Amino acid sequence: MLKVAVVGATGYTGRELVEILIRHQYVRPHYLTSESYAGQKFSDVYPRFRGLCDLPLEKPDNDRLAECDFIFAALPHGTSMKMVPGLLNTGRPVVDLSGDFRLQDPGLYPVWYGYEHCHPEYLKQAVYGLPESNREKIKDARLVANPGCYPTAVQLPLAPLLAAGVAEAEDIIIDAKSGVSGAGRAARQPYHFPECTENFKAYKITGHQHIPEIEQGLAAAAGRQLKVVFTPHLVPMVRGILATIYLKIKARIAEEKIWDTFREYYDSEPFIRLLEDLPETKHVSGTNYCDIAFRLDKRSCRLIVVSAIDNLVKGAAGQAVQNMNLMLGLPETAGLLQGV
Amino acid sequence: MLKVAVVGATGYTGRELVEILIRHQYVRPHYLTSESYAGQKFSDVYPRFRGLCDLPLEKPDNDRLAECDFIFAALPHGTSMKMVPGLLNTGRPVVDLSGDFRLQDPGLYPVWYGYEHCHPEYLKQAVYGLPESNREKIKDARLVANPGCYPTAVQLPLAPLLAAGVAEAEDIIIDAKSGVSGAGRAARQPYHFPECTENFKAYKITGHQHIPEIEQGLAAAAGRQLKVVFTPHLVPMVRGILATIYLKIKARIAEEKIWDTFREYYDSEPFIRLLEDLPETKHVSGTNYCDIAFRLDKRSCRLIVVSAIDNLVKGAAGQAVQNMNLMLGLPETAGLLQGV
Amino acid sequence: MLKVAVVGATGYTGRELVEILIRHQYVRPHYLTSESYAGQKFSDVYPRFRGLCDLPLEKPDNDRLAECDFIFAALPHGTSMKMVPGLLNTGRPVVDLSGDFRLQDPGLYPVWYGYEHCHPEYLKQAVYGLPESNREKIKDARLVANPGCYPTAVQLPLAPLLAAGVAEAEDIIIDAKSGVSGAGRAARQPYHFPECTENFKAYKITGHQHIPEIEQGLAAAAGRQLKVVFTPHLVPMVRGILATIYLKIKARIAEEKIWDTFREYYDSEPFIRLLEDLPETKHVSGTNYCDIAFRLDKRSCRLIVVSAIDNLVKGAAGQAVQNMNLMLGLPETAGLLQGV
Amino acid sequence: MLKVAVVGATGYTGRELVEILIRHQYVRPHYLTSESYAGQKFSDVYPRFRGLCDLPLEKPDNDRLAECDFIFAALPHGTSMKMVPGLLNTGRPVVDLSGDFRLQDPGLYPVWYGYEHCHPEYLKQAVYGLPESNREKIKDARLVANPGCYPTAVQLPLAPLLAAGVAEAEDIIIDAKSGVSGAGRAARQPYHFPECTENFKAYKITGHQHIPEIEQGLAAAAGRQLKVVFTPHLVPMVRGILATIYLKIKARIAEEKIWDTFREYYDSEPFIRLLEDLPETKHVSGTNYCDIAFRLDKRSCRLIVVSAIDNLVKGAAGQAVQNMNLMLGLPETAGLLQGV
Repeated sequence: MLKVAVVGATGYTGRELVEILIRHQYVRPHYLTSESYAGQKFSDVYPRFRGLCDLPLEKPDNDRLAECDFIFAALPHGTSMKMVPGLLNTGRPVVDLSGDFRLQDPGLYPVWYGYEHCHPEYLKQAVYGLPESNREKIKDARLVANPGCYPTAVQLPLAPLLAAGVAEAEDIIIDAKSGVSGAGRAARQPYHFPECTENFKAYKITGHQHIPEIEQGLAAAAGRQLKVVFTPHLVPMVRGILATIYLKIKARIAEEKIWDTFREYYDSEPFIRLLEDLPETKHVSGTNYCDIAFRLDKRSCRLIVVSAIDNLVKGAAGQAVQNMNLMLGLPETAGLLQGV
Repeated sequence: MLKVAVVGATGYTGRELVEILIRHQYVRPHYLTSESYAGQKFSDVYPRFRGLCDLPLEKPDNDRLAECDFIFAALPHGTSMKMVPGLLNTGRPVVDLSGDFRLQDPGLYPVWYGYEHCHPEYLKQAVYGLPESNREKIKDARLVANPGCYPTAVQLPLAPLLAAGVAEAEDIIIDAKSGVSGAGRAARQPYHFPECTENFKAYKITGHQHIPEIEQGLAAAAGRQLKVVFTPHLVPMVRGILATIYLKIKARIAEEKIWDTFREYYDSEPFIRLLEDLPETKHVSGTNYCDIAFRLDKRSCRLIVVSAIDNLVKGAAGQAVQNMNLMLGLPETAGLLQGV
Repeated sequence: MLKVAVVGATGYTGRELVEILIRHQYVRPHYLTSESYAGQKFSDVYPRFRGLCDLPLEKPDNDRLAECDFIFAALPHGTSMKMVPGLLNTGRPVVDLSGDFRLQDPGLYPVWYGYEHCHPEYLKQAVYGLPESNREKIKDARLVANPGCYPTAVQLPLAPLLAAGVAEAEDIIIDAKSGVSGAGRAARQPYHFPECTENFKAYKITGHQHIPEIEQGLAAAAGRQLKVVFTPHLVPMVRGILATIYLKIKARIAEEKIWDTFREYYDSEPFIRLLEDLPETKHVSGTNYCDIAFRLDKRSCRLIVVSAIDNLVKGAAGQAVQNMNLMLGLPETAGLLQGV
Repeated sequence: MLKVAVVGATGYTGRELVEILIRHQYVRPHYLTSESYAGQKFSDVYPRFRGLCDLPLEKPDNDRLAECDFIFAALPHGTSMKMVPGLLNTGRPVVDLSGDFRLQDPGLYPVWYGYEHCHPEYLKQAVYGLPESNREKIKDARLVANPGCYPTAVQLPLAPLLAAGVAEAEDIIIDAKSGVSGAGRAARQPYHFPECTENFKAYKITGHQHIPEIEQGLAAAAGRQLKVVFTPHLVPMVRGILATIYLKIKARIAEEKIWDTFREYYDSEPFIRLLEDLPETKHVSGTNYCDIAFRLDKRSCRLIVVSAIDNLVKGAAGQAVQNMNLMLGLPETAGLLQGV
């Protein structure tokens, strides 16, 4: 069994990594770090893991990291930027789950994240970790920037359509909805149970930091620059993202052509499910699947694509493990083809 | 106190009518009908109302209806169509909460509702009951067709923008989300608690029966025919609708112009709240308010409008009472300006 | 309209007081205080109240308090103790919703609340505000200590049984369950939506501060000292308390005798509903009712009593308004006989 | 890989069996039956399993059953009674998850289940499948009656205390709370999302069919007949049971003695976790653990024991797999030591 480190193990993505790793056939969690909970056990913070994972939480230490074969960084953005270069110095391959190494253009960080990038030289080296688009590069990468939850739910259904020219690269409208775990583990007023349950709202309209990541990925697929409208919403549930995406098409496109495009791209992909029925977040809950369906609205010449993922699995920890599998030469689906 | 009948009192809209009417200053529920529960009391079906409303549930009877000063029909669509003419024969004014008298063109019923209208001659006489657009006609109406929940949440924010020409009448995309009470009281698999909680999904894409109602209302505002893309979603909560609407604008429109348009239309409207913050369904829960806010996306020349209503109040029973108030010459806000 | 002050208006009980008072026929909220939010409007903190209550939040001020006819103190325990004497100095009658004036024996405060009472001289003057047991004293009181949520749900069903000697005063076991609003408005980890939803737990077993209040009330009913076992639990819902209470009875007691006892005490009580069906928290939600039912377990000679209240209404703000009505000589049910 | 049949695969316990079996190291689901859904795939009924388990659903057939090495019966009680003898005729070992073979005394079926047992001759042969109490007999059994969810949550914490004489066998009060999946998959009014969410209630007080099963198990532990008071409640969540149990003890018992008793029984048990903190249902969700803690109430000489399980795992499918492992000579924890 290979040894794995999770730096920042007590946030929700760190927790989900542990959940997946303790079931993995080829690796096991070996070293878990936490600034806030150092000295406690992982199962003190998450009592569900008593007996399943009682590893101690420690302050990050290079010698301990060097004992491991692989490192996940599950840190807040802004923090990850500062820590990851040190992690890479151990010589171990790293998957970073934050947004800090996803954008190739360092100039986008001040605009969308509100800070200058302190290590822009790593942005070129970082490989964007969407295996369905980028598998070969991931295999050779030392640093993989694991995609954001919304960008995963958006790029997977759109990349084939844009690459094949089936949908137009203009006027893309993305209406996305996420469960509350996407907001992280810190208790704050909007996520206080009595405020959050029985409530639905939009947030960060026109300003969400995942917009440039989505545009970067879709531009690569389309082979041209593009802009999207992206509106995230908060759903009173724990897990899941559903994205409803409105695309322009030519009037005379046939439904079958769209099916063919998806099938061509995804028929051998282990984690993409093309559906006739509409996706529901419960159907991907605890799995690494992305479910995709579409409807043609002939009245408006719009193609409406719906995708669903578990934001903590395919949108974070599951995809990170998928990337690790690729980087370590393990079977890509190891640890991921059963429910979490 | 005027006497009011609720025909079909045991569905969720009937229940909500009773909830509002028992607090109304000028009227009181007098006669409640139910096919399925005749012989029981209203409070047998809804035990919360023990002591608040213990009226018997009876099979509909014309003599009993004629004792009343006003009639609400809270029946399923398809059924209402057959019953309402008889209710009107009592000589009492009627608000119908179904979809059966909302569309002026009878030819739309087979397309969107799946049946021929059996009384198309009433469609011309019926007044569409959106007071903010249609107040004077409602005052004189004998039959008011109470708007659907989604159409209310969509028309209220869009009518001013289209009427003023601030937004274009083409390429309107409506992404709407509703709580589960919108699906009614009948227990069915998708609404079984373990299936429905922790789940989010889209449904009836391109085919929802509220589409022609929305298009009819917006066409009247815009002064021209138009088509919309409308996608409803199901949120794991009981009450509330939030609509996120994407509109095209001219590149150089100023935010202030949009504010002015809304203010001009709505500054004296008692149930419209124009907000700088984004609406949330919890903020309208149990109220007759429609909350509206907007954001300009200068990158895409799109105007994003967000509205929120309580689907059972402004989206059904509250608006029905507002219409009743207008039809009976009562203060328009009677019974409606406090939380439910 | 009489003028009412709410000192500490932004907690959940303060919010609920405002909710009830804006619908009250004889009084209206006039002066709302908040330490943390002074300078904002009430509707800034609770946007649902925009247009319904836009009063400013102010730091408490004696002159402003003296403008009012009545004062509610909705402060945390420990704080209320220090503030209430000053409120009484205005000469206005006061209902205090904290636990600070409920216990007659000052020696209980260090044991159960963890602090010495700084104004024990007020404990004798304070009248315990359970109208069903204490109505006449409340009418003449200047300071009413509004009962706790759990003590209300427990005393209402038990007082008649103990007073009539139908149940034994020994070996009383109370298993109580509360919605999350009982934990207050402050965001904390256990009430963070992803932690709190889909979770159920017991807390503070043998040590909850409501135990001495329950024992004091039941002892008065029974005419002797007694002890109870009390276990509170947290239910993943916002509102409601359900108490399941296990009592010893004599083997040969008839069910009818228990019904008679309840009816004798409660038949003319406006807010007690004796039921054959078992209570459910949804049936009292937003109301000032206490629903009560019982079952005799002949196999064990135990009487099982179940009661349900809305913890924020009959368990806090509704009962406080009921007390205010009594103290001001208004109809006892004013503002309370419709759903919130 | 051994081949396993699930007879009645589309109920919630059948679904959970499939969930566990597809991750099991030594067995795999081979044959799934359903009366209602025969002809469809398992993943048509549960779309989450697309790609994970796409087995067809078939009408039960003896030849197909005989292909399997092991049979689970996950049928409603009353139906199972009629089917299980036929399943045993295949010669394969069977775990029955219904209540139909749990009670040794056939005379209890008419009283608690409302029907005569049609095959009382199998009751003696059936082994009660609580491995922590009955491991050796289970290993040799051909028919194991898998315990009920509530009885599991009650017997695991109480058996050691009664066997050791630490708690008295009289006056046992069990206040139990279950998530909604315990009510099964059929959509019915009380479990309709808008009725069920934000609601808490007791049900079947004094009459739940799990009472005789609990009494039978506890009597075996105590070595004498006994009666319990048992009150189940419905919690608005999907999974989990929490039992709060009130026991009489002798005044002078030391806390350490109780710890010793539990440790002696359970220290080597893989699925029992003895805790100092109080159990929470979320901490056992998706696991086969039973978490147990206790508090001594010295004021009342009561011992309060709290246990938590996942009703679908340790309370049904997980325990069934644990029994299968024992019956097939596999490692007892196979397939069960990771989260579901």
